[in-house]
Amino acid sequence: MKDIKVKVLRLGHRPGRDKRLTTHVGLVARAFGADEISLSKDDEKVKESIIDVTKRFGGNFKVEINDEWKQTMKNWKGDIYHLTMYGEKISSYEEKLKKRDKDVLIVLGAEKVPRIVYDLADYNISVTNQPHSEVAALAIFLDRLFDGKELNLDFDGEIKVIPQAEGKYIEKN
Amino acid sequence: MKDIKVKVLRLGHRPGRDKRLTTHVGLVARAFGADEISLSKDDEKVKESIIDVTKRFGGNFKVEINDEWKQTMKNWKGDIYHLTMYGEKISSYEEKLKKRDKDVLIVLGAEKVPRIVYDLADYNISVTNQPHSEVAALAIFLDRLFDGKELNLDFDGEIKVIPQAEGKYIEKN
Repeated sequence: MKDIKVKVLRLGHRPGRDKRLTTHVGLVARAFGADEISLSKDDEKVKESIIDVTKRFGGNFKVEINDEWKQTMKNWKGDIYHLTMYGEKISSYEEKLKKRDKDVLIVLGAEKVPRIVYDLADYNISVTNQPHSEVAALAIFLDRLFDGKELNLDFDGEIKVIPQAEGKYIEKN
Repeated sequence: MKDIKVKVLRLGHRPGRDKRLTTHVGLVARAFGADEISLSKDDEKVKESIIDVTKRFGGNFKVEINDEWKQTMKNWKGDIYHLTMYGEKISSYEEKLKKRDKDVLIVLGAEKVPRIVYDLADYNISVTNQPHSEVAALAIFLDRLFDGKELNLDFDGEIKVIPQAEGKYIEKN
């Protein structure tokens, strides 16, 4: 499935308030098959949480701390998708996404996103034109990119959850 | 699309810590076509935020405050899906979900979920068996239930976002 590189760029947000949300963004990026997330300096603790999950549950997901997000966008070789409720409907892009013919940078803002983000992005894409959640938008985007296959990834970790109709079953390697 | 009733039950969580996440859960429920969410008493402010969005952006989404979640589960006429990373893979349920032949109650826990939730649910379903986010799990579940059509719902609100390739465009009615 990992025929291309997929990186998530989480733009600066209000310190303190959005740490849990940023952690969820990072965990979704990992669980849904992205390779890496870039966070801002304020997010060292978020980085630790995500790395801890990766250690226990497996995979090679990377967390970068980098405040130079404009450079990240300018230097990206591949397509840049900025997810925003104001953008074009993702349903118009499903065929293009499925092709996965270029590396993908997914840009996620918090509340106010500077105009330059819209300009530096190749595509401004909406997952519904309603206000909801960057966590959900990222999940749906990665689902369309990986065509549902991301839901059955095997991370080969120390801890492996074995699906159960009732209760919990974990294998430890 | 609304041929069945779809309600989300958000189980009690740690006051203070998870309010933003619960708000995102509620906004995803609304934006992705559910009819109603049930929250606990601690979530009066979350209720206000969600109702405020509904007033401005439209639709008939309801927010109930009700701590009697066991009764909600016991009294539900229809299918109960508990979303948990320990459950059976959602990919095995896609055909069943698409049929939408019964009302659906979707139960979302925070961290520790009492055993009785697994027992009262008809189905314990996982959206990946990795730790990530109840916000993402809900979005993917509703996407499979509504077969992608939820992304193009029209809420006929005071504020309407018109999809744009660049920048923002809003119509006010």
